This record gives sequence, C-alpha cells and structure tokens, in this order.
Amino acid sequence: MTETTNIKAYGTEAAEAPLNQLGIDRRKPTAHDVEIDILYCGVCHSDLHTARNEWHGTIYPCVPGHEIVGKIVSVGDHVSKFKVGDVVGVGCMVDSCRECQYCQEGLEQYCEPGMTGTYNSPDKYLDTPTFGGYSENVVVDENFVLRIPENLELAATAPLLCAGITTYSPLRHWNVGPGKKVGIVGIGGLGHMGIKIAKAMGAEVVAFTTSESKFAEAKRLGADEVVMSKDAGQMAAYQGKLHFILDAVSAEHDINAYLGLLRVDGSLALVGAPENPLPVAAFSLIAGRKSFSGSMIGGIAETQEMLDFCGEHNIVADIEMIDIQQINDAYERLLKGDVKYRFVIDMASLKNQD
Amino acid sequence: MTETTNIKAYGTEAAEAPLNQLGIDRRKPTAHDVEIDILYCGVCHSDLHTARNEWHGTIYPCVPGHEIVGKIVSVGDHVSKFKVGDVVGVGCMVDSCRECQYCQEGLEQYCEPGMTGTYNSPDKYLDTPTFGGYSENVVVDENFVLRIPENLELAATAPLLCAGITTYSPLRHWNVGPGKKVGIVGIGGLGHMGIKIAKAMGAEVVAFTTSESKFAEAKRLGADEVVMSKDAGQMAAYQGKLHFILDAVSAEHDINAYLGLLRVDGSLALVGAPENPLPVAAFSLIAGRKSFSGSMIGGIAETQEMLDFCGEHNIVADIEMIDIQQINDAYERLLKGDVKYRFVIDMASLKNQD
Repeated sequence: MTETTNIKAYGTEAAEAPLNQLGIDRRKPTAHDVEIDILYCGVCHSDLHTARNEWHGTIYPCVPGHEIVGKIVSVGDHVSKFKVGDVVGVGCMVDSCRECQYCQEGLEQYCEPGMTGTYNSPDKYLDTPTFGGYSENVVVDENFVLRIPENLELAATAPLLCAGITTYSPLRHWNVGPGKKVGIVGIGGLGHMGIKIAKAMGAEVVAFTTSESKFAEAKRLGADEVVMSKDAGQMAAYQGKLHFILDAVSAEHDINAYLGLLRVDGSLALVGAPENPLPVAAFSLIAGRKSFSGSMIGGIAETQEMLDFCGEHNIVADIEMIDIQQINDAYERLLKGDVKYRFVIDMASLKNQD
Repeated sequence: MTETTNIKAYGTEAAEAPLNQLGIDRRKPTAHDVEIDILYCGVCHSDLHTARNEWHGTIYPCVPGHEIVGKIVSVGDHVSKFKVGDVVGVGCMVDSCRECQYCQEGLEQYCEPGMTGTYNSPDKYLDTPTFGGYSENVVVDENFVLRIPENLELAATAPLLCAGITTYSPLRHWNVGPGKKVGIVGIGGLGHMGIKIAKAMGAEVVAFTTSESKFAEAKRLGADEVVMSKDAGQMAAYQGKLHFILDAVSAEHDINAYLGLLRVDGSLALVGAPENPLPVAAFSLIAGRKSFSGSMIGGIAETQEMLDFCGEHNIVADIEMIDIQQINDAYERLLKGDVKYRFVIDMASLKNQD
C-alpha cells in the first residue's frame, strides 16, 4: 500500500459548488519522485472548465491547477535530476506511458494510451484522481518536473507551464522566426504569451483583437501591428499576408476570415477550444493549400526548452496575484475577461489558513 | 487587333440551357503559342458546375473542358519547347502573371493576381472569356502546354490533366510514399486516380467508400484495404492509424470522423469542394496536432512531373468514351455518379458534325 500524507488543498465537490478548502492525500515520494512545496499556481481557464464539469468527465472532489512553481523539499532515493532546494515547475502532465511512439519522440502530450494530467486523471499510485496545484505541495516523478531559470520572477513564471508552452510549441512547430509575419488572435492569457514569444523568436507580429482598448496593450506586449478584427477594411489589408496564425480564441469566431489572411501554404493553429464545431469553407483551404490545425501544450523536453528560451529573453506572464480565498471571485472575473492576463495564486494564503 | 479563326465548339448560352454547338474565335498563334488539334477532352465535374453557373460568375457563352489532349498543328515563331506533330496536353490553366512570388516558385495555380483558367477566365488576347476544350482546337502559350508520355493510351490520359494533378500534387506535398498509410476518401473521378497514384508512390492505401459495390473496384484500382465509412466499427479500427488522408468527396460528410483516423501530425487534404462549410470540432485538431487542409490542382512543372510519373508507372484514368452530342446526358449521369470513372469526349464527333 502506498504511504500517503494528508495535506491542505482547495477544490470542489460538485460542478455547481464553489471551491473551498479540503484535505487530500499525497503519496510519500517513491524512488524517482520529488516533493515540491508549492509557492505559486497559475489559474488557467481549463481549471474552471474542469471544476464546473463543462468538458464532462470531471471526477469529484476536483483540485485544479497545472501551472505550478515551487521548491523541492525532498527527493526519492533514485532521483538524479534534482536536489532539495531546486526551484522547479510542473505543467499539465505528471506522467505518461513513456513507451509509445509519441512518448519516445518527446510528444508525451499525445501519448497513445493517454498522458496523466496533473489533475482529474486516474492516479497511477492512489485510488483517487490526480489533484492539481491548488494545494500545499505535490509529489511528481522527476521526469515530469521542469527547471525554472533563476533570473525570472517566480510567480510570473507559473503561467509559462501551460499558457507559455501552449503558445511556444506551435510557434516553433510552424517555424515562426525572422522573416515571418505572424498573426496572434485574441489577447488574453494565451494570446499575450503568444505575442511575447513570437516577437522574441524574431517574427513580425500582428495582433488581432475585437477590443479597441487592447490596441495599446498589444503594442506594449510586443506586437508590431494591431488589427481590429471586426473592421472588414482593416482585415482586407492583411489578405494573403500572414505566414502563420496562432488562434487563442475560445469563443465562437469566423475561422474563414482568418484563413483568408494566410499566404499560400500558411497554417492557422487553434489553441483555444471553442465549444461548438467551427464551419470551414472548402475554398478557404483549397485556394491556397492552407491548413486549419490545432496544437495542445507541448512535450516535457520542449517545455524545458521554452522555459530556457523565456529565461534568455526575460519573458514571463503579466499576472495579478490573488489569495486562494479569492479563487471563486477570480473565476467570475475570468469569465468576463477581467484579468491582465493571468491570475496567480500565492500559495502562502493556503498554508496560513487554518 | 488580334487575328482570329472561327471554329466549332460545344457550349452553353445560359445556366439553364443545354450545351450545343456554337462557333467561337481562337486567336491565330502568336510568337510563343502552339495550336493544338484537340483529339480528346475529359469531362470534369467543374465543367458542369461552371456551365450551370453553380459557382456563380460564369460568363456566357461558356465552353467548358480543361482535360485536353491533342496534336500540335502549328507553332509560333519563337516556340522552342514543342514542334508540329507533338502530342501534348493542356490542363486547368492557360496562363498566369508569371511574375509574382508564387508563379516564380512554380505554383502558378496560386498566382497572386490570379491564373488564367482554360475556360471562363478573362482572355488576355481577346474580348471574350477563355473557351475550353469542348472544341476543335486551342491556341496556348507553350509555357502552359504539357508533353504526354508516348506509352500511355491517349484518350485515357486526358483526365490526368485535372484529376491526375489534383490528386498527385497533395500526395507529393504531404510526402506520401513507402512506410506511409494513406486514406483515399471517395472513389470517383478524383478518388480513383488518388488510389492509383498513392499506390504507385509506394504507400499502403486504404480506400473509404459509402458503397459496398465499390469494394472490389477499390481493390482492382490498387487499394490494399477498403473501409465502409458508414460502419462505425470499421472506422474505429483505423483510429489514429493514417499518416495522410486525401478527401475527394464533394458532398456533405463528417470531416471529424476522418480527422480521428489521422496519426499525430497527420493531415487531411480536401480536393473535393463541398458547397457548404464543414463543421470542424476544435478537439479533432488539437488532440493530435492535426491539420485540415486543401489543395488545388498543381503547378505546370509539377503537372509535367505527374505526367512523367504516370508514364513510368503506366497510369491512366479509367474512362468511358462519349461523342460530344452525348454531353448533356453525360452531365446527368455524372450527377448520379454513374460513370467509371471519367467521361472523355472523342473530339472527332465534333469535327464530323456539320
């Protein structure tokens, strides 16, 4: 039987219930595990979707959180990559089969039997689902733990573990860099990282927004140009001009309008996940050998590459720090897009609560 | 003023009118032109769409036909690539701007100002639209004329000029070859060429059809396996198994069901053109970094490459020969899918008519 420790966490018992404090069991570190004292945890929109069972399949109690940073407080006997005191991160995955063709290629996120999500996945050690980072600590196999560059402000680094890799991976995969003109659609948690990273990769960045108020913001984040996507005239000026588009919008929107902005052989990669299927006109693709694509986070090695890249380029997320007790309000504000651009929970607020 | 010759053709004066004989003007060959005596012309579904103004924008009178093969009967003073007596073909394009980045790259089909279609495009020399291959002869700039391999049966080669290149180009672009498992969806004019070409490229070919009657046919054409696409159980067996899918279906169909059959990083390329937008679920793409793509014919150099490839591998279309006087009946049969797999007009039937 796996030995466990009961710790404090924040989670929910039902789709309609607010999040509140609850106790969960963490396994004691096994040979390849590290135990991480969680210092900060970012708030991703997926946390809200899962807590409220909006994607169905939520197992309760549910403890969200997959943008975790903290300090290692103990290590298993065979841990070789980390030592006590290291500042590390955990993203959306805590394990995978490690044997399938995709795991072998470093694409653990597409693991054939399925990766183990940081929360709401079957736990390989315990009879519970995995519990995420809205908690005091987490125990994770060292192979799924990331090293955080020392120069980055720690709290603002947390969102890199999901929002950072979700945007970095497709930008790399579709060869964004100098000489490429790249569109970033939607300036929120994902999009604001997309602008920063695409710019640091050397691309010419065009941000698309439906909100006049985000023009100055987009420029501050690094966009070379900003386009009001509701203005047909502004959109027309970019017809056939972009090599790649990163689409970070989760709401309904007209994909064909953006496909029209791509050059021949261009791709639009969706990283947001609109609820309903998006209608795509055959001609939008056929007339320029274009692709409508998608991308989901990134592999472990690539996540480390992204963190190192962000270290070199001094990139972190723009965040608003909250206490864990504010999480239900934060979810409401998230729904209204009222955050610039990511909430991060200061986990001291959980530790200090009785 | 450009000198012209009046010749016999078959076309239509209105969307609702049947095709019948009419006279059209062809320019006399200028310095870089060749004059081709048309021997055979394939019947593409685009001919019907255009004749009936189903894609809108048809200019009447309209003379369809862009799967043209014939013999050169005269050449302009500066023609260097061909001589009188050469057996040649003309496909979907008779010109392009030749200067834009895409023309420079051999992607004339995606010419920025727009390529000149073999029919229903503004003619660069005359005040009429271009007139296609349902006619006695055609005058074309030598740079848009293809050489036909000698070993191929000429009439059955005509469909290669559109159906052949439309399938060859995406199969090449998405690197189909040995070790790749490729799906071909729809076994009609395009799909039957797709099966033959993908097989000749060395891929393992899986044909998808809604019709039990096409199982033996698909195998005869070269498919290694055939799947009844309406049977969920048969479809499930191919989940995540295909590197690439060529989708040649013009009717409404469930793209998400096919995207599910792709491996990680797989692409589905549409070459049919369904009338209504196709609903695509975000998850179908995101969960495996998949792409929903499109492709339109191919460039001139690539069309020659395709013809040479077909020569080497002895590939032609399966055809049913008709006289031009049967064209209206042929259109009706085309609508019912009642052809294996391409009608080709014997143009002697036009020349012999008063």
